[in-house]
Amino acid sequence: MVLYDQWYIAAFADELQDEILARTFCHQPVVLYRLDDGGVVALEDRCCHRHLPLSKGKLTDNGLQCGYHGLTFDRTGACVSVPGQSLVPPGAHVRPYRTEERHGLIWIWMGDERNSDPVEIPDYHWIDDPAWATVGGSIPLKAHYMLSIDNLLDLTHEYYVHNSTLGAEAIADHPVRTERFDSSVRVTRWIHDEDPGPFWRMALGRDIDCDRWQIVNFHLPSHTMLDVGVAPTKTGAPKGDRSQAIEGRVCISLTPIDDRNSWYFWAFCRNFRTDDPDMDTTFQKAVTGAYMEDVTVLEAQQAMMDITENPWKIDVNADAGQLAGRRLYDDALRRQESQLQAAE
Amino acid sequence: MVLYDQWYIAAFADELQDEILARTFCHQPVVLYRLDDGGVVALEDRCCHRHLPLSKGKLTDNGLQCGYHGLTFDRTGACVSVPGQSLVPPGAHVRPYRTEERHGLIWIWMGDERNSDPVEIPDYHWIDDPAWATVGGSIPLKAHYMLSIDNLLDLTHEYYVHNSTLGAEAIADHPVRTERFDSSVRVTRWIHDEDPGPFWRMALGRDIDCDRWQIVNFHLPSHTMLDVGVAPTKTGAPKGDRSQAIEGRVCISLTPIDDRNSWYFWAFCRNFRTDDPDMDTTFQKAVTGAYMEDVTVLEAQQAMMDITENPWKIDVNADAGQLAGRRLYDDALRRQESQLQAAE
Amino acid sequence: MVLYDQWYIAAFADELQDEILARTFCHQPVVLYRLDDGGVVALEDRCCHRHLPLSKGKLTDNGLQCGYHGLTFDRTGACVSVPGQSLVPPGAHVRPYRTEERHGLIWIWMGDERNSDPVEIPDYHWIDDPAWATVGGSIPLKAHYMLSIDNLLDLTHEYYVHNSTLGAEAIADHPVRTERFDSSVRVTRWIHDEDPGPFWRMALGRDIDCDRWQIVNFHLPSHTMLDVGVAPTKTGAPKGDRSQAIEGRVCISLTPIDDRNSWYFWAFCRNFRTDDPDMDTTFQKAVTGAYMEDVTVLEAQQAMMDITENPWKIDVNADAGQLAGRRLYDDALRRQESQLQAAE
Repeated sequence: MVLYDQWYIAAFADELQDEILARTFCHQPVVLYRLDDGGVVALEDRCCHRHLPLSKGKLTDNGLQCGYHGLTFDRTGACVSVPGQSLVPPGAHVRPYRTEERHGLIWIWMGDERNSDPVEIPDYHWIDDPAWATVGGSIPLKAHYMLSIDNLLDLTHEYYVHNSTLGAEAIADHPVRTERFDSSVRVTRWIHDEDPGPFWRMALGRDIDCDRWQIVNFHLPSHTMLDVGVAPTKTGAPKGDRSQAIEGRVCISLTPIDDRNSWYFWAFCRNFRTDDPDMDTTFQKAVTGAYMEDVTVLEAQQAMMDITENPWKIDVNADAGQLAGRRLYDDALRRQESQLQAAE
Repeated sequence: MVLYDQWYIAAFADELQDEILARTFCHQPVVLYRLDDGGVVALEDRCCHRHLPLSKGKLTDNGLQCGYHGLTFDRTGACVSVPGQSLVPPGAHVRPYRTEERHGLIWIWMGDERNSDPVEIPDYHWIDDPAWATVGGSIPLKAHYMLSIDNLLDLTHEYYVHNSTLGAEAIADHPVRTERFDSSVRVTRWIHDEDPGPFWRMALGRDIDCDRWQIVNFHLPSHTMLDVGVAPTKTGAPKGDRSQAIEGRVCISLTPIDDRNSWYFWAFCRNFRTDDPDMDTTFQKAVTGAYMEDVTVLEAQQAMMDITENPWKIDVNADAGQLAGRRLYDDALRRQESQLQAAE
Repeated sequence: MVLYDQWYIAAFADELQDEILARTFCHQPVVLYRLDDGGVVALEDRCCHRHLPLSKGKLTDNGLQCGYHGLTFDRTGACVSVPGQSLVPPGAHVRPYRTEERHGLIWIWMGDERNSDPVEIPDYHWIDDPAWATVGGSIPLKAHYMLSIDNLLDLTHEYYVHNSTLGAEAIADHPVRTERFDSSVRVTRWIHDEDPGPFWRMALGRDIDCDRWQIVNFHLPSHTMLDVGVAPTKTGAPKGDRSQAIEGRVCISLTPIDDRNSWYFWAFCRNFRTDDPDMDTTFQKAVTGAYMEDVTVLEAQQAMMDITENPWKIDVNADAGQLAGRRLYDDALRRQESQLQAAE
């Protein structure tokens, strides 16, 4: 099951240029393209006539033309011309999807458009804020998207999964605080006066002990923002003074493809050495490397769940954030099911 | 669903020489081989003893010998010897299939042999008529065979799918006439006094305007013969005078493998430059190239239909030939089902 | 269906050294490793917490540590530590499997441990008997394990499947004697005063006629021991005098992975030229080559059975051994089903 009445990321804005993009979200094939004015169109990727994916066609002045019989569809999904005849038959349209371009991302609403409100798009403004430098990527993941959310809300896996890349032995023992809100969860860890670990040491460019924080914000359905950073020990960061800190905002959001596949969109935004292309390269590599460690775990976990009927048997203390996230998600799933039943 | 009581093409005659050929038709594995006298044998490709495909065995003087325990089967499918014993157990036989070799093709009847009559084999005599030169091929297609018949009965897709190879911009607007008969459909288009397009221009070897025709004959279950050609404008072709024309007969027939795979057999026969091997090569390449464009469309269409419950939503004027073909096919399917139910 | 309350081979002893080994037996994922004292541990390869295969983790002083959250399991499958908390939650354990190391093999009991008794492990002592030299291997087979047992109990397939490697034309006609016991079957063939075939001729190193024997012992669930050899003609071998013989003991045992996959473990033990590494190489190659011929047949047979509803239609005289083996197996399956129903 996936949640439908939600904003999901369809693509980074710069993934959608002149080319037609075909992706599947929430079990539905979607074709995306840009109009001449830069506007984004998202349509059902299946011609209403003979089911050829419209993404196999081409863009014309009148719209997206099917590559089989030339039916052409405008930005609303309406068929506007059929070769060889003057009238368009009634019912000739494909489903349009509402999109919004914001924060360097194309957002899409896969559910009932009447319930959509762009105000609910999460705040990922760091991605296109000139005060921050951003690297990022989009990766298909062979796992249900909530397995990745579990992973992000769990600050303890860092030591076991990412020890060689992100980890520092010290962090596993630091307490994590979990806060629950109406449609979000926050997990916070502060590590005072410690070696910041290889990743931040590299970013700092010097070898000093630091106060270090990791604050994971999860918002339904599958959006996370990790507020992370280090500041020289006792410069006040834990009390809010980040003037000597270097900071990151990691925007990670999952979009369901189907019940066992998802798109993983990530952007790492930093407020230091923002004009340094070497730092871009370093961050791109480091985060991609760490993510590939998660991919290995998540896909092995999904593959095992595919052949296993038993549910997970135990929870541990470190699952507090994850369990809070799952509770939000399960409640939302239940609400969706009630609405679907009421609508029948 | 596929139609069983029908003649289908199993192979080109020259595909079946000394080697054993294993193919699946209508969900049934079949092994084909030739006898010393050139006769063709087609048997169930599954030993009645322990289910090894007989195509894994070898040909002996006594028949086809299973590669596991050496049971040997004659041309009727009867087991004629079992190693180590003098008696052949009762019930030791595999199903034989009736075949006919005609027009350079091996035809096979996958249904009830009592209903088979070679008189129903379609006329593809151009393939081995010395007055015509032929190129051809057999290609597995990942799509239901009727998707390919739809495609062949539809003269409008040429512009959208084959514009770079066969198409000429002019043709899309020319009217198509559809005629319905008891077990066949004919679709005809005449294009008068136009550029014949790159394909025929190459065949003509000169750049003149022509009268051009495309006549698609479809016969149940999945046989088509395309009568195509060009003649210099106003030399009388539309009225039947083809003395100055160059002509082709394209024999295309689909054999179902299962509900989403089929064999596509095609032969392009021409009555001009018949002794020109360069022309053979050119036609082999051009038709294969055009066919691969269709394959891309048909396989994408099948893949989309695999994940889509919705039926096709609209028809357009250009579907007249296709709809006529589908009506014949659907009627034949219904007759088959009634007969199967009556037989139970 | 597979039989559960049985000893199966999990691995050759030397396949399990310092590394963690992940294999699936009887539909159940298993992780195997050795303790410092050389003892073998076999556990359910699925963390009870979040289902990551434990084989993705690492061995620590305290046990096998999960690669996701660091839960550590001891040799009994009990979770002995959870990072970040002092108490291990109740129910934190994975299923342990009883193992025995014997005859150079790791044996595993996949059923109810209360029913396990190592006395039932078959006698494969030749594998680590210093008087015998052994080569062997473990190969995954894409077929139900009983198809391989059928194959081993059938001395007639040798001529058809292995003619180029093991076969000699003469053997097919020699009578085979089948003996049935409570939980085993024995199939015996003696070939007197014949060319011993390419395999034994090579082993003998000279070209003389021999008395040759093949005695296949099958024991439930899937263990076979082939007593094979040749002795110069009329030196008394058929009457028990093997003093001038060269002999082999082929230990072949199948372990079910699931209903259409199995592990094939084989060891060829010989009592001649035991210190000759060239002979090791020759035997390794020859037996592997012959086995790959069986793999081709068995996997083709399984693939055909996957798409075929019909049962096998006939039996032949040569099936006597195989049918006796199947009867034992079917009886054991029925007993297992009765026990499972009684337990419900």
